[in-house]
Amino acid sequence: MPVRIAGASSTAFGRHTESSSRELFSDAAAAAVSDAGIIPRDVEAVYVGNFMGDVVEDQGHMGALLAEAAGAREAESVRIESACASGGSAVRAAVNAVRAGSRDVVLVGGAEMMYTVSTPAITDALANAADNEYENQAGLTFPGIYALMARAYLREFDATREDLAHVAVKNHANGVANPVAQFHRECTVEDVLDARPIASPLGLFDCCPVSDGASAAVVVSESYASEAGLDAPISIVGSGQSSDSLALQDRASMTRTPAAERAADEAYEEAGIGPEDADVCEVHDCFTIAEVLAVEALGLYERGEGVRGAREGETALDGRVPVNPSGGLLAKGHPVGVTGVGQIVELAKQLEGRHPNQVPDARVGLAHNVGGSGASASVHVLRGEGY
Amino acid sequence: MPVRIAGASSTAFGRHTESSSRELFSDAAAAAVSDAGIIPRDVEAVYVGNFMGDVVEDQGHMGALLAEAAGAREAESVRIESACASGGSAVRAAVNAVRAGSRDVVLVGGAEMMYTVSTPAITDALANAADNEYENQAGLTFPGIYALMARAYLREFDATREDLAHVAVKNHANGVANPVAQFHRECTVEDVLDARPIASPLGLFDCCPVSDGASAAVVVSESYASEAGLDAPISIVGSGQSSDSLALQDRASMTRTPAAERAADEAYEEAGIGPEDADVCEVHDCFTIAEVLAVEALGLYERGEGVRGAREGETALDGRVPVNPSGGLLAKGHPVGVTGVGQIVELAKQLEGRHPNQVPDARVGLAHNVGGSGASASVHVLRGEGY
Repeated sequence: MPVRIAGASSTAFGRHTESSSRELFSDAAAAAVSDAGIIPRDVEAVYVGNFMGDVVEDQGHMGALLAEAAGAREAESVRIESACASGGSAVRAAVNAVRAGSRDVVLVGGAEMMYTVSTPAITDALANAADNEYENQAGLTFPGIYALMARAYLREFDATREDLAHVAVKNHANGVANPVAQFHRECTVEDVLDARPIASPLGLFDCCPVSDGASAAVVVSESYASEAGLDAPISIVGSGQSSDSLALQDRASMTRTPAAERAADEAYEEAGIGPEDADVCEVHDCFTIAEVLAVEALGLYERGEGVRGAREGETALDGRVPVNPSGGLLAKGHPVGVTGVGQIVELAKQLEGRHPNQVPDARVGLAHNVGGSGASASVHVLRGEGY
Repeated sequence: MPVRIAGASSTAFGRHTESSSRELFSDAAAAAVSDAGIIPRDVEAVYVGNFMGDVVEDQGHMGALLAEAAGAREAESVRIESACASGGSAVRAAVNAVRAGSRDVVLVGGAEMMYTVSTPAITDALANAADNEYENQAGLTFPGIYALMARAYLREFDATREDLAHVAVKNHANGVANPVAQFHRECTVEDVLDARPIASPLGLFDCCPVSDGASAAVVVSESYASEAGLDAPISIVGSGQSSDSLALQDRASMTRTPAAERAADEAYEEAGIGPEDADVCEVHDCFTIAEVLAVEALGLYERGEGVRGAREGETALDGRVPVNPSGGLLAKGHPVGVTGVGQIVELAKQLEGRHPNQVPDARVGLAHNVGGSGASASVHVLRGEGY
């Protein structure tokens, strides 16, 4: 049963050090609710993605906190956490609640504050997404984990650091026009290759930034949309989610993300489409290598061929299948628990024909959200009616 | 659409300082899966309640971690958090997933490690369930919050500290026979009244302990239970969840828990029953006053009458409506993110006629799980076929 998106909005991603998750979510939720043409009291459930509130804001119980901030204090509320895939998991929980007939109006969102703490503290907080007993204790942090994956990929396939750099160049170019993006500055392949090394072979521009931000979307049943006369032309027609071992060491391959492959298969099957039907994609490019793995997991490219996307311009705005027209995590930013909802906000705008980087005639959008180094993944298929 | 419980198990609650959430959950999950008569690979989704892993174990992303620990690493997984109501919210997510037709076999569980850190650290970690900006910054901790509620209750109604003490006496008596309970020692009203003060009017025996523990239950669709030939006579026939302001200061009353009232109303309506139909209840008695508020929120007693339950023996094992035959949070223990699932495990045993404190002819069970001082609440109605 398809569910509808009635409204969606994100705050700017980036630096909001004078704010808090409560305040940021209040802004995003108010905009999404207004966009939907409802009032906060119509909201029956609030599902929020948040990863590090406990550590960074000394604040858990974000479901109730953010429901109240959205003006829906009596609604059911819960926080959903699957590391950097928290947002996508929250979207899936909303889809389940509506499909189950349990709720007709769900506000799904996320909020995250990351800038307010020091770089070592944020590295520690992010490391909670990896396997503490087996990875963190050994000194691995996420740039290191993805650098291992990048090294393995470059060794296994016919690919170079320059190929990865093209991902950063494309996504930074896309970010320029997106008002909610954290960065609005283009970069060149040379900039990426010459940037400060973070974890070889990844340099500064291969890595997404630390970001504050919030996103929200109003997900409703078809019957509610119809009875309330809402303008809700976008449907979530497929939802998939799967897992893998938390630690990289336990995977059969470092150059595949099978959880995302399974999530994509499930979402495609529900939607009755295949990767060839995608018009626009928002994927989890926390590092340049991650976008390459993402387009392969989604079946847009064969294994080892994903680097062609950015290098040949096939995933550019005017390419065969635009990937991350929002700027992606690399340029738009990555408030970790928010990202999966932020992707839905971007895709909703695309399918309604009102995105600053509009993909012409976009009717089918894919959202691909990953937690950790691939231990959690969700994929959603959105369909518009044309605009 | 009812969903079935095919298996359920808890580890002992208490002190497991040589263990971890991963290990405890592995034990609980293996027992629940075995009890269900399935194998781990049959599990399609793993929803886990956990509150303080980030702070206490430096471990977030518990969904994927615990799915792997359960032998279901490819299953969908997610962590659900609504403070001390995380477990109940995870049960509700499982119900939604099965009702939505998205999953046929969900392992719902929880794990929490609390003993491994110092008392000040655990007080800090628990405080994340309150409103950090408005409560914690003012010096409130949870014993203090519930003491305020108890004071308000004793002032507003015809009730005494001794009335509250009867709740502790009853639940400690019940805990003696429960092998998974943390405490196996009876206490008297005098013991409770003379115990070390924690936050006046609450003394040591008015407060639940700090606990490590894990619980798991296998929730399946009716069609799966039937096709796989599972022995799954218990159904979840009602699920309700609601919220309230995070901070106590924003409530209209300190002697009511409206989120729990709404959750109960919703669960009753789904189940087509009323409070008078309950044969056995597991309620959230994190403090003695909390059980009084719980039985009133469930409609078992009018406002101001809840103290009668324990005082008059009406909620004792041989009373009109036994409440917390498990020993409750006070005696069984309260690994916070686990408790809501632990209640389901206890009720399943009751409805199957194999509980150490068996309530005769129990056919309808209520689970009442609360987060914070009442900002989150879930209520589930379970029905057995008799035994």
